[in-house]
Amino acid sequence: MTGGNPISGTTRLYVVLGDPVAQVQSPGLLNPLFARLGLDAVLVPVHARPRDFDQVFGGLRCVGNIDGIFVTVPHKVAARGLADRCSPMVDITGSANALRREADGSWYAENFDGVGFVAGLVGAGCDPAGLRVALVGAGGAGSAIAAALLAAGAARLSVCDPDTAKLAGLLERLDPHWPGRTTTSTAPDLDGADVVVNATPLGLRPEDPLPLQPRLLPPGAVVADIIMKPRETRLLREAAALGHRVHYGMHMLDGQVDSYRAFFGLP
Amino acid sequence: MTGGNPISGTTRLYVVLGDPVAQVQSPGLLNPLFARLGLDAVLVPVHARPRDFDQVFGGLRCVGNIDGIFVTVPHKVAARGLADRCSPMVDITGSANALRREADGSWYAENFDGVGFVAGLVGAGCDPAGLRVALVGAGGAGSAIAAALLAAGAARLSVCDPDTAKLAGLLERLDPHWPGRTTTSTAPDLDGADVVVNATPLGLRPEDPLPLQPRLLPPGAVVADIIMKPRETRLLREAAALGHRVHYGMHMLDGQVDSYRAFFGLP
Repeated sequence: MTGGNPISGTTRLYVVLGDPVAQVQSPGLLNPLFARLGLDAVLVPVHARPRDFDQVFGGLRCVGNIDGIFVTVPHKVAARGLADRCSPMVDITGSANALRREADGSWYAENFDGVGFVAGLVGAGCDPAGLRVALVGAGGAGSAIAAALLAAGAARLSVCDPDTAKLAGLLERLDPHWPGRTTTSTAPDLDGADVVVNATPLGLRPEDPLPLQPRLLPPGAVVADIIMKPRETRLLREAAALGHRVHYGMHMLDGQVDSYRAFFGLP
Repeated sequence: MTGGNPISGTTRLYVVLGDPVAQVQSPGLLNPLFARLGLDAVLVPVHARPRDFDQVFGGLRCVGNIDGIFVTVPHKVAARGLADRCSPMVDITGSANALRREADGSWYAENFDGVGFVAGLVGAGCDPAGLRVALVGAGGAGSAIAAALLAAGAARLSVCDPDTAKLAGLLERLDPHWPGRTTTSTAPDLDGADVVVNATPLGLRPEDPLPLQPRLLPPGAVVADIIMKPRETRLLREAAALGHRVHYGMHMLDGQVDSYRAFFGLP
């Protein structure tokens, strides 16, 4: 069974766009929610190649019974450009992962990647307010997490990425909102960090190098990874072996469900 | 429950396009079939307004995990124009109601409206081979039913429609395939008919006039209606009261399921 309601001509649609799309977890999270809420709605995966993204999005935004469009890799930056209006978080991060149809038919974009991560962290008993955080990776996910950590009150944020242009761009977008709290470097700056976050794809494959040296972690630092598969990355395994508390990538998705519910106005 | 399999990132999609779309019956027919066959596939309704149809279709045809597109009113003629290749039935009827993605990525259009109607008729014990049939309505559904009845061996077909240009066009498309078997008229020609078919929308609303006078039906004639809601139209009710065998519109849809299964290469 789909974990959802029976699909009929009256069913409202949500879609998740990606390339590939086979790995997306959102249908398994949201269809059971729709069923619990008694909503006549379903979330289906939509495979859109980068060269087709504009055309696919352009078609879907005209569909009368689509209420929401989720966007995953590699379309998050393009989705921002196709939305009619964007949240401040989308402007700061430069990317969107969820769009909703407004009452006037226009599409409004939001980015929940960072908010979901922070909600998951808080839910696990690690509120970043007042803490010093070291973040590795200034890409799409890293940017979203950086903004959400600062919005949640992180006292200091060090962001590291080998790409200095990316770092400079992110700092320029963060500093007007949260002045003086962010530093950047091309190598991980773990000094004094209470929380250390991997927001790079390193760890997806067993042969990947580590995003940072676990032996350089400050004593007592919490270590978080955004990678969902494998659940336990080499980073988390080695950090746990050194006695650190670890935080799994799956929590980022869990933390997003409540945000989606509010964003789409679900009961 | 949806009557289907759990939806995940690997689920293949089928869509049905219409305006409105709330009335479509195909999700309730095909999703349980997918489940019985153990297929990781789902059929969802897509509401596309006429002004948006090209754009919606253009987007959907690029989606990598869409294997089939069903089309209903008012898009059947437009769908023919957007397909890469069409079956002979689509050329004859001028409209399409199902498209499949071919191995080369192109879209091939077919029209099952007439074939489904005839399959339903045969299934109910009324094989049109050798029979004389009177058909009221030369629109999209009427054209498809006319071609399917002739292909199934109807000896004589009289088609009536108030629109003489429509009649002439249909005759011109039918006669090269089945020469001399079709006559046309602007008023119903029920004389000597073994089977009488209403292929007009008259009967959808309680206040509609009758598409033909039941008291003019030849004795013993079978009376069929393509209207699905209400199940029993005023025509069928009055014909039954006069002692005629009647055939309900719902059978047209039942008759299409096996055709779809073969068309989409389902197991």
